Order: sequence, then structure tokens, then C-alpha cells
Amino acid sequence: MSDLPKSIDIHEEGPREGFQIEPGPIPTAEKIRLIEALAETGLHHIQVCSFVNPRVVPGWADAAEVVAGFKARPDVHYTALWFNGNGLERALAFRDKLHITGSISLTASEAFTRKNLNRSHAENLEAMRKQTALHLSHGVAVERIGVMAAFGCNYQGDISAEQVVATLEDGFAIAKEYGAEIKRISLADTMGWAAPHRIERVVGEVRSRWPDQKIGLHLHDTRGLAVANAHAGLKMGVAQFDSTVGGLGGCPFAGQKGAAGNICTEELVLLCQEMGIETGVDLDRLIEVGRMAEAIVDHVLPSELIHAGSLDFFRKHAA
Amino acid sequence: MSDLPKSIDIHEEGPREGFQIEPGPIPTAEKIRLIEALAETGLHHIQVCSFVNPRVVPGWADAAEVVAGFKARPDVHYTALWFNGNGLERALAFRDKLHITGSISLTASEAFTRKNLNRSHAENLEAMRKQTALHLSHGVAVERIGVMAAFGCNYQGDISAEQVVATLEDGFAIAKEYGAEIKRISLADTMGWAAPHRIERVVGEVRSRWPDQKIGLHLHDTRGLAVANAHAGLKMGVAQFDSTVGGLGGCPFAGQKGAAGNICTEELVLLCQEMGIETGVDLDRLIEVGRMAEAIVDHVLPSELIHAGSLDFFRKHAA
Repeated sequence: MSDLPKSIDIHEEGPREGFQIEPGPIPTAEKIRLIEALAETGLHHIQVCSFVNPRVVPGWADAAEVVAGFKARPDVHYTALWFNGNGLERALAFRDKLHITGSISLTASEAFTRKNLNRSHAENLEAMRKQTALHLSHGVAVERIGVMAAFGCNYQGDISAEQVVATLEDGFAIAKEYGAEIKRISLADTMGWAAPHRIERVVGEVRSRWPDQKIGLHLHDTRGLAVANAHAGLKMGVAQFDSTVGGLGGCPFAGQKGAAGNICTEELVLLCQEMGIETGVDLDRLIEVGRMAEAIVDHVLPSELIHAGSLDFFRKHAA
Repeated sequence: MSDLPKSIDIHEEGPREGFQIEPGPIPTAEKIRLIEALAETGLHHIQVCSFVNPRVVPGWADAAEVVAGFKARPDVHYTALWFNGNGLERALAFRDKLHITGSISLTASEAFTRKNLNRSHAENLEAMRKQTALHLSHGVAVERIGVMAAFGCNYQGDISAEQVVATLEDGFAIAKEYGAEIKRISLADTMGWAAPHRIERVVGEVRSRWPDQKIGLHLHDTRGLAVANAHAGLKMGVAQFDSTVGGLGGCPFAGQKGAAGNICTEELVLLCQEMGIETGVDLDRLIEVGRMAEAIVDHVLPSELIHAGSLDFFRKHAA
């Protein structure tokens, strides 16, 4: 039994995830070059930067310059990330260029909430209440609830599907309190704990509870299972995935430096293409952009596909 | 519907695949150290070397010294690879230490047979007839038929399940001609063309045709789909996999240098462990050996898991 989608939406997060974690410094012009090249591959959603404290994330000190600098295509949603009112204000300065919507961002692991945000779950709920109110007061729709560590946590261990549902219930309660209309649930495997059966279980439980919500997966390849997990998600009917070109990014919570980050966009596209699922992406062009990303960050990226070449490339050249 | 095995057999090929492709030179003592460490992880099948022409594969000029040098565990099958009578004779010198059985090795792609062996399929069949006779004349059982490029080929493009079945028919005809009793079919994704639905189709066709044969998968991670393909294989009841620790090895047929090789043993073990399938392997110990392999070859290996640490490691240390 399978419930394969006909097409999927890919949210490309390579620029934001990648340039945040690279030691750099990477010239602003190179960041812009990558964003513009990504927009030419057929991707329709590109997260271009983080509006964060430059002392904490020096790689995004030039976020405003990047957004000001790239030439936007009308058929692409460019998005950004922020964590507080100051970040939101910086994003709103580019309201005409960026696609700005709000999220209620929660974590299924209390231990990770403390480690990552230095807050209890209750304190985080309170922060999300304030953030939701702030977004709505600026006329920014809050349409998404995100759950980090939805499949397990380096600090808390396994996370049950019930815990994910309970976390989402908290998010929906906030949405209801402020009258926000949630359209999408995003489940993040922040530290690479998912395995295919776990994807099936959690997605299944969440879909049973909220059958009308779109479910997205934000997968990390920390332990090499991301593509298998994406495949399990596709078979459950999941039709929205976050990913990063070349596998840009990393995992600051892993046991060693140099651990892999997000699932590679091009490997996700290959999987879908071979299964007959539309992504809208020109894979050979995307592979070229992956190679460009590798040249920009000046080290080997985790994507295997950018080193091997696409199947279509070989199909065209086969005897 | 799924047909998950309770346990799987892993054939570790890291030493043979890895030291063959590494520019090296890697000291014989280091090769021995890796083989001995692998045998302590719970792996029961380890391919330790190739008896090949040292002018063609200088990395295995010391094959005899490696086999002579390692301390064997009685519960481990140590195997080797060879392609002709000379190689077989060199292997037979270690008949007491190595587990020596023969294979009928075919390729589903005629273009690859020409490229890799400089033979037509018919010429290769003739060579396999001679090789089968040679093995049997030395009292070496021929128990396995291997099919390379069983899921696609960089030189020929897609390969149909029917083509794989036809290739196997040729192999079984040789076995019948010489009275060899085949116990196992190995399907190799030599150039990384498999995707999960292709695994299902080919394994399904082969199993329908030969329901009493054990089917093994030799997967390459050339384009990042190996773990998803292994998962598809497990769901089809496949219970034997070849793999390499750390993802040692590579692909000389890929579009670029540095393309990934075989599926990583530790990622396969993680997948099985999370699904409740026995491998007999101590994953944390295997991860340590993966890190040792990385130190021996002195460059980053494709395995994500050796950089991230196992889930059990974090489960033990979680709050």
C-alpha cells in the first residue's frame, strides 16, 4: 500500500543552512550567485538567509546585503529565518522581495529546548505566544507549526509519536488563542534520529489527528538514513520536503565535527524523478549548482550525486 | 505488505574494495590491523583481499602477506577475490585460512562487459564455463551467480528485470552443464543506478523465477540512494548484503573522481537495528573501526554515521 504524491514542493534551505555553519567568511557576492543559480533550476522556494544576531552567527552578518543584492524571479518564493522581533523587523524591510509568513516553532524534546534555547517547554510556549501575537500585529500570517527533534534527540533519546502529537496540540492551542489559521505542519529530524518505520509511525499518528493539514518533513542525514526516510515519507503521502543543495549545512549537536546536515536536494530530486514524482527541478542543472556550492565553500560536500553525475546524463550518453 | 527478515548476513568488503582503490601505499600491517578489528565487531564474513595482477592493482601486491599475517577468528569466514586461474592458485595456498568458493560472475549490460572486461557477453560466458570447470577441478564448490550492473549501467543506460533474469538463466545453464549447485544469487548495483522501486521489481522477478535461491544485494551509494535501496531490499525479504566499513571503496566508472563506493556497513547496521533486524554486529564497536579506517586511508570517508555517533551511544548518555 502506498500513497505516493504526484508532485512535491521542495523548500531549498542551502544558502541559509550552509552559510550559517561555514567558517567562511564567504563573500556576499558568492552567496548571491548561489541564490540566483538555485532559482534557475526550477526550485520554487528558496530560503536565502537568517536575520540573526551577527555576534552569534557571523556568517549572516550580511543578511540584508544578500537580500538586497539578488535578482528575484517572480515564480520563486524567497524566504528567510528569524527568531525574535528584531529579526522580524529586519525581514519586514524586504516585504516586497521576501515571502514572509510566521511559524510556531516547538520542540518535542524538553532537554533539547533547554540545550538549544535555554528555556523550559512552558517558557518556550510563552515565547511562541508572544511571537505569534507579534507576527499577527504586523499583518504577517502564522500558518505553520514546526516540531524539532520529532524523531529523537541526542539529549533525551527516543521521542514517541504521542509526544509529537502532544507538542503539536500545544501549538494548535496557541494558534487558536490568537486566531491564526495553520495550514502546514513541519516535522524536523533535527539530530538525525529518524528511520523509515519511525517516519511511518509519526507521520501516521499526526495525519490521523489532523487529516486536513499538509505535512512537511525536514530531514537531516546525520546518520545516513535521510533518503530512506524521505522515501518512507513519500510512501506516506508527504509532499513537502526541506533540503539543501549539495547537503550544505551540518549538525552542531553531533558527536564529532563534520557531521552531515540536511538531506541533499539533488538526491531527493533523483529519488522522486526515478519514482515518477514531479519536482519541477532540472536535476542536471541542480547538480551543476551543487558543484558551484562546493567550490564556494571550498570543501567536499556530502552529496554523492554531485560527484557521480545524474542517471539522465548517462542515459543520454549511453550507447 | 512486507517480508522483513529476522536477521541478515553482512559480507564486509571494506578491506578488499578499499585498499584496491586507495592510492596508498598503505602498509601491510595497517591492512591487517583493520581486518582484525573488523573481526571483533561481530561480522561473520570479511573479504580480506584481491588476488589480482599487482601491475594493474598495486594496492593488492601484498595480498599474500596480508592473508598470511592476520590472526583468524574461528567464527569468521574470511574470503578473497580472484578473476583467473593464477588468482585462484594464490588463494588456494591459503585454503586453511580462507573460505574458498567459486562464483559465476556475469554482467547484465553487454556494454559494461566490453568496457570492464573487453569481452562480449558470449565470450564472457565462455570464460565463465572455463572458470567453473577450473574451480570444480580444484574441488572448489561453485555456489553463487553474480550479476553486475543489474539495475542500470553508465554505458548502456537502464537495465530491465527481464535482462537480469536472462543473464541469470545463462549462469544457471553453465552451472547445470558442469553440475555446480548454485545456492545464492547476488545482484550488484555496480554503478549506482538502483532506486527503491527498481529493487522491488528486479528482486521480485528474480524471486518469482528462482523461489528457492537466496538473493543478496551488492549496493553502491554512487548517487546517495543505497540505504533507501537496502530498505527496499529488506522489505522484499533480502537477507544478505555486501557492504564496506566507512563506505571504503569508490567508483571508477562515475562522472567525477571521488564518487562514493559501496553502502556503508554501519549505516546498514543502524537501519537494521532500528527496524529490529539482527545483524550480530556491535554498532558502536563498528563505528570505532570506521574511524580507524578513516585514519588509515587518511581522508574523510563517505559514512555519515562514523562522524555523528550511534543512536545507542546517545540513548545511553541521554538525560
